[in-house]
Amino acid sequence: MIKTDILIIGAGPTGLFAVFEAGLLKLKCHILDALPQPGGQLSELYPKKPIYDIPGFPEVLAGDLVDGLMEQIKQFEPGFTLGERAETIEKQEDGSFIVTSNKGKKFHAPVIAIAGGLGSFEPRKPLIEDIEFYEDKGVKYFIKNPEKFRDKRVVIAGGGDSALDWSIFLANVASEVTLIHRRNEFRGALDSVEKVQELKSAGKIKLITPAEVIGIHGAEHVEALDIEENGAHRKIETDYFIPLFGLTPKLGPIADWGLEIEKNAIKVNNALDYQTNIPGIFAIGDVNTYPGKLKLILCGFHEATLMCQAAYQIINPGKKYVLKYTTVSGVDGFDGTRKEAPKAVVKAIV
Amino acid sequence: MIKTDILIIGAGPTGLFAVFEAGLLKLKCHILDALPQPGGQLSELYPKKPIYDIPGFPEVLAGDLVDGLMEQIKQFEPGFTLGERAETIEKQEDGSFIVTSNKGKKFHAPVIAIAGGLGSFEPRKPLIEDIEFYEDKGVKYFIKNPEKFRDKRVVIAGGGDSALDWSIFLANVASEVTLIHRRNEFRGALDSVEKVQELKSAGKIKLITPAEVIGIHGAEHVEALDIEENGAHRKIETDYFIPLFGLTPKLGPIADWGLEIEKNAIKVNNALDYQTNIPGIFAIGDVNTYPGKLKLILCGFHEATLMCQAAYQIINPGKKYVLKYTTVSGVDGFDGTRKEAPKAVVKAIV
Repeated sequence: MIKTDILIIGAGPTGLFAVFEAGLLKLKCHILDALPQPGGQLSELYPKKPIYDIPGFPEVLAGDLVDGLMEQIKQFEPGFTLGERAETIEKQEDGSFIVTSNKGKKFHAPVIAIAGGLGSFEPRKPLIEDIEFYEDKGVKYFIKNPEKFRDKRVVIAGGGDSALDWSIFLANVASEVTLIHRRNEFRGALDSVEKVQELKSAGKIKLITPAEVIGIHGAEHVEALDIEENGAHRKIETDYFIPLFGLTPKLGPIADWGLEIEKNAIKVNNALDYQTNIPGIFAIGDVNTYPGKLKLILCGFHEATLMCQAAYQIINPGKKYVLKYTTVSGVDGFDGTRKEAPKAVVKAIV
Repeated sequence: MIKTDILIIGAGPTGLFAVFEAGLLKLKCHILDALPQPGGQLSELYPKKPIYDIPGFPEVLAGDLVDGLMEQIKQFEPGFTLGERAETIEKQEDGSFIVTSNKGKKFHAPVIAIAGGLGSFEPRKPLIEDIEFYEDKGVKYFIKNPEKFRDKRVVIAGGGDSALDWSIFLANVASEVTLIHRRNEFRGALDSVEKVQELKSAGKIKLITPAEVIGIHGAEHVEALDIEENGAHRKIETDYFIPLFGLTPKLGPIADWGLEIEKNAIKVNNALDYQTNIPGIFAIGDVNTYPGKLKLILCGFHEATLMCQAAYQIINPGKKYVLKYTTVSGVDGFDGTRKEAPKAVVKAIV
């Protein structure tokens, strides 16, 4: 069981920044996210795209914003459980909560902050018979650790950036990379498309288009795939099948936690602290809704900040907190580091 | 008369960012501020100090944050009226407002956004008889254009960063710089104190300490000052007297506009759009108050953003606005520039 002050569900920018504001209040955070890396949509969907409306950044790549946030919070040593989804919640007698993940991991905290964005990102799965049987037996919808594919044969299916980028990456890792797409045309960043063209010409990526994977073979693990190419059927041998057909956000099991839900978002008290109808559970960022709500990252930052103040009151009942400015008081990390502005000196000039 | 969509009172970070969010909605802004440069406190009080709690910046100098915001908004061509204070407001029959500055300049806008921070910064004035008479006749509390002092004799009074930094700067501009302080000890950044020591030793700054300016002479303009130094009196000739004794923020004339005020801040409807009790007048950033209010820059950014949505509705009644993401839709500047993410290509790989 992982114990923490605030369990943050969702490692997107709002969830990450909540760690910082909690840290200023000396509250510890643990973050749970279904994706294999922090950053939410920014890392998973558009790491190389610029965002123009983050205050103070005339332009920032989504991936760089995540890097900045990770750097900003590292002194507060957040825990991370990635690649697992929050499944159930049980309120304890003392008002605290135990959340259990889809893999059975348990988290105990007095405050839950749902920073779930548009929901947990679930892969779009191809309609292939028995594909569920092969999940974790050679079928992968996410690539968590590319080293797993070293010197293995890999078939990637898809026609977008993820399929292109992972084909390029694995061309130097796997013994064989085959990319299958139902059209001849790919949609992606120009340099990714060109790079795949190069690797194909150099014989480092096999391309089968227009084609679809229609069947999987193997006793205990993927061994071969049935391919339909231009109406003809054939079989190819492989160790892994990686369909990258995009992700669909789903509110998922959180929808059954008894929270007030409106248009697929969680209703919160925006007039005070972004708390939901269940005391102790907050919803911040794109996952919440209230009159005038804008699904913008910068709004999530504000909501996270006010939420932390309320969390402080729940965790330290009756204790008064006086806001301190980081410029004046500095920042004390849980890792023993201290950041502070250079102090003024008082010195005679003679 | 200056006409605009949103008159923003206050050029601090919140006021500046409001220009960006308004720009995305195709609304034009004009900014009015009592200080001689944009940035509010950040530029005036601590430009070289780091801030640690701006989301995405593990550390950013206050001055650099202002530079980033100015760069971010320049495509929306905000108008600036600096060095003037908002004095009176008159509601027009059509619901719009005319604001008049202390110098008689008039601004006409359907929406007013007060982003006044802690108030307009008023200089702390030394208690010297007739000093008001000499204001604008050789007594300066702010330095707007240092070139005004080229080849002139200047006396600066004060013992903090402003006095030190302007003495250093003007040492290469004025024909003579005299720094007067009532103690021998100065309080400031180490490098500023050391630089003044150097310039003093090199004969480029005259230092008179511990001493005070107690009188001003001159028929139509400052000509000389009476100094008390260690109990003794003497007179020194000068063209300018610049007392830099710090600034006090004052809500000022805005306090008489009929707005609901609580603890020196303007009450707003935080459950919706940060509007005040007077429809069409909003208050954003440190100048406002509501339950749970935190006087943080990042909260001002959020408030500015929601305020702009409400302003859009006032200016375009009944028109529906659909939020567009900058990453997806790009940003169209009023200056004809366009920023956008590189588009995905659709291309066959052969």
